Amino acid sequence: MRGYSAGMNAATDLASAELAVASLNEAAVAARTAAVALAAAPRQRKDAALLAAAAAIRVRALSILAANAEDLAEAEGLTAAFHDRLALTPARVEAMACGLEEIAALEDPTGRVITEWTRPNGLVIRRVAQPIGVIGMIFESRPNVLADAGALCLKSGNAVILRGGRESLRSVAAIHAALLDGLAAAGLPATAIQVAPNADRSFVAAMLKAAGLIDLIIPRGGKSLVERVQQESRVPVLAHAEGLCHTYVHEAADHEMARSVLADAKLRRIGVCGATETLLIDAAIAPVLLPVLIADLAVRGCRFHADAQARAICPELPPATEEDFHTEWLDRVLNVAVVDGVDGSLAHIRRYGTEHTEAIITEDAAAATRFLAGLSSAVGMWNASTQFCDGGEFGFGAEIGIATGRVHARGPVGLEQLCTYRYHVIGTGQVRG
Amino acid sequence: MRGYSAGMNAATDLASAELAVASLNEAAVAARTAAVALAAAPRQRKDAALLAAAAAIRVRALSILAANAEDLAEAEGLTAAFHDRLALTPARVEAMACGLEEIAALEDPTGRVITEWTRPNGLVIRRVAQPIGVIGMIFESRPNVLADAGALCLKSGNAVILRGGRESLRSVAAIHAALLDGLAAAGLPATAIQVAPNADRSFVAAMLKAAGLIDLIIPRGGKSLVERVQQESRVPVLAHAEGLCHTYVHEAADHEMARSVLADAKLRRIGVCGATETLLIDAAIAPVLLPVLIADLAVRGCRFHADAQARAICPELPPATEEDFHTEWLDRVLNVAVVDGVDGSLAHIRRYGTEHTEAIITEDAAAATRFLAGLSSAVGMWNASTQFCDGGEFGFGAEIGIATGRVHARGPVGLEQLCTYRYHVIGTGQVRG
Repeated sequence: MRGYSAGMNAATDLASAELAVASLNEAAVAARTAAVALAAAPRQRKDAALLAAAAAIRVRALSILAANAEDLAEAEGLTAAFHDRLALTPARVEAMACGLEEIAALEDPTGRVITEWTRPNGLVIRRVAQPIGVIGMIFESRPNVLADAGALCLKSGNAVILRGGRESLRSVAAIHAALLDGLAAAGLPATAIQVAPNADRSFVAAMLKAAGLIDLIIPRGGKSLVERVQQESRVPVLAHAEGLCHTYVHEAADHEMARSVLADAKLRRIGVCGATETLLIDAAIAPVLLPVLIADLAVRGCRFHADAQARAICPELPPATEEDFHTEWLDRVLNVAVVDGVDGSLAHIRRYGTEHTEAIITEDAAAATRFLAGLSSAVGMWNASTQFCDGGEFGFGAEIGIATGRVHARGPVGLEQLCTYRYHVIGTGQVRG
Repeated sequence: MRGYSAGMNAATDLASAELAVASLNEAAVAARTAAVALAAAPRQRKDAALLAAAAAIRVRALSILAANAEDLAEAEGLTAAFHDRLALTPARVEAMACGLEEIAALEDPTGRVITEWTRPNGLVIRRVAQPIGVIGMIFESRPNVLADAGALCLKSGNAVILRGGRESLRSVAAIHAALLDGLAAAGLPATAIQVAPNADRSFVAAMLKAAGLIDLIIPRGGKSLVERVQQESRVPVLAHAEGLCHTYVHEAADHEMARSVLADAKLRRIGVCGATETLLIDAAIAPVLLPVLIADLAVRGCRFHADAQARAICPELPPATEEDFHTEWLDRVLNVAVVDGVDGSLAHIRRYGTEHTEAIITEDAAAATRFLAGLSSAVGMWNASTQFCDGGEFGFGAEIGIATGRVHARGPVGLEQLCTYRYHVIGTGQVRG
């Protein structure tokens, strides 16, 4: 384990690593047993646990807020953004409770017959959705992730071991208590939703090594956390490290649509992974439309990094470096490049993109089809804002994250993506002979 | 990389490892470019390459057989089983060519709209099948795996890098030449199907480290190969290490069906992963049926390891150790245990199984449903032989292997499982606002 073992030469670190492995292994074995119980639990029981947990969050609201106040008081020198992620308010606590109720109302994703066919020999083959098993979730300081992720895992029949940021330990423990109330009320095992016993980094290292004990790791947080997990994990990982999303304005774009969609894609929320970071615009339309698009965003405080062709049209734009086009700004900053048609836009995206979400704005269906077919990104949009890349907007009800890998699931990860499948083969005594 | 780096202290080993990484990285970059071309290639072009490769295999049959004869001559002290895996015959070469033609005739798995829905805001969301990208395939000495795997990857639009066993280098090169003829005839890049330049183990180590360059590793071979790959790979792995399959004869089994299905499950082919290794039989029916089942198999040369309850009924059976129930015999050997109903069978399978394939033989639909629901194995059978766990028998046309992991795909891995998906979101200018 490269990163984590780097500072582990001292005997105390080694002892702490061994303790963490023992502690994680014990948690994972208990989680596996809980997962068997959850997989067998009827929908009503899982929903009862979620509704009871929602009620418990409301009952425990004051103690959750008090724990959060202690976390905030202890964490010194927080940036405003970090403070905002860590801080709970009565409204945020209520939103957590409502989130649990909404997840209870969603369809049970397990047990569905995904597809079924009959073979010439009479065998009926059914592909059936089932929980994955034991999920490991690693998140940063947003304590409400615990409630969301715990609820999504529970609803999908998965046991989960969660490890939050060290600054949010008390908040996480207080919310966890409410989830445990819910499990107890429904007669489900407390080990279905476990949290790390401390903020020791070696617990994370142990999670990442736990192939066979944990079936899937979902990291949620900044790029450095996710990349470290992706590099070090021996357990399959579902995640995205970066959302370097592109909006491509094709020469046949409706100008007004391009203006409103780009403004939403860039500025609706600047800190989300589906925010557009780079505008690509066709050379044929750029002289007319680019100045308008730039002006729209500039009056809303956006800054720019532009390539030479864009600066030939809008000389006031600062020049972009190669590095800029690789940068997910998560800010009021937009990269701008002029491209030559669909192929030019695809070449740019292949070079700089992170396979998250890209959009084309055009009235030309053939161009849109070619753009969408040529992308390998998890999500391709036609005449819509990249900020629609979201489990709620996809109709999943809630998401545990976004995935940009090439296997298992891509795009928003909701209840369905927290399932795997198995086959049921139903015969009447067939032999292969 | 634990295993591989163990012997890499000498400077020459380090140099060879660095060379292997450079060589693999170059191959993988070329494969990525080829994958883009394959993803864009219409079905006709991929099929043309497969048909031309089949023709080339027939044209090159004599040189393939000559290369294989050299491999066989050089490999000394082979076991009979190993010799059988490595040896090609005119019939096996013809079967390879036919296999390519059969894969050409299968539906193209890419581009399919897997599911589509419309959101209240009018956005149309389509989940579309696409190739995974670059596959890394590691196999042992069966050279025909190259033709099968190369063809399945090509048909599913994936570039592939294959590394066969050191004993089969010349055979693999000769078959590869035919596949390259096919790619050239169809105007597809030669780098779509690449083989390792030598039998150096450090090339395998480099493949397993190539996260981001290779999207999926598929090992095919013995348990030790697969387990080593699973333990060491930083790239997602699709595989099964063991098929410790169970056939459970429920108290409401039809006796004649139990006899014929068990005999097929155990003895049809003893060396395949779907062969039954353990018979579980209900205590209620064992006194009557177990002696009959044992006699059926014994006359066909099967030996047994039985638990105490089974030996109380059939005292001539040798006792089973704990280790026996963990052993995939791949031989005319069967473990036997008496269990108490569906729950007893599930408890045994959870303890000793490898999540591959298990069957229940019963006329009681409620018991079968409970058994199938309680399994977490990739495949559960009801009144059918475990040997039906096979891509061809599932109707997939061909399989690249079997998977028993919890993510992406489980059971037989065919063309559909060699695909991932992406979303196409089609709007009319929607913004999230």
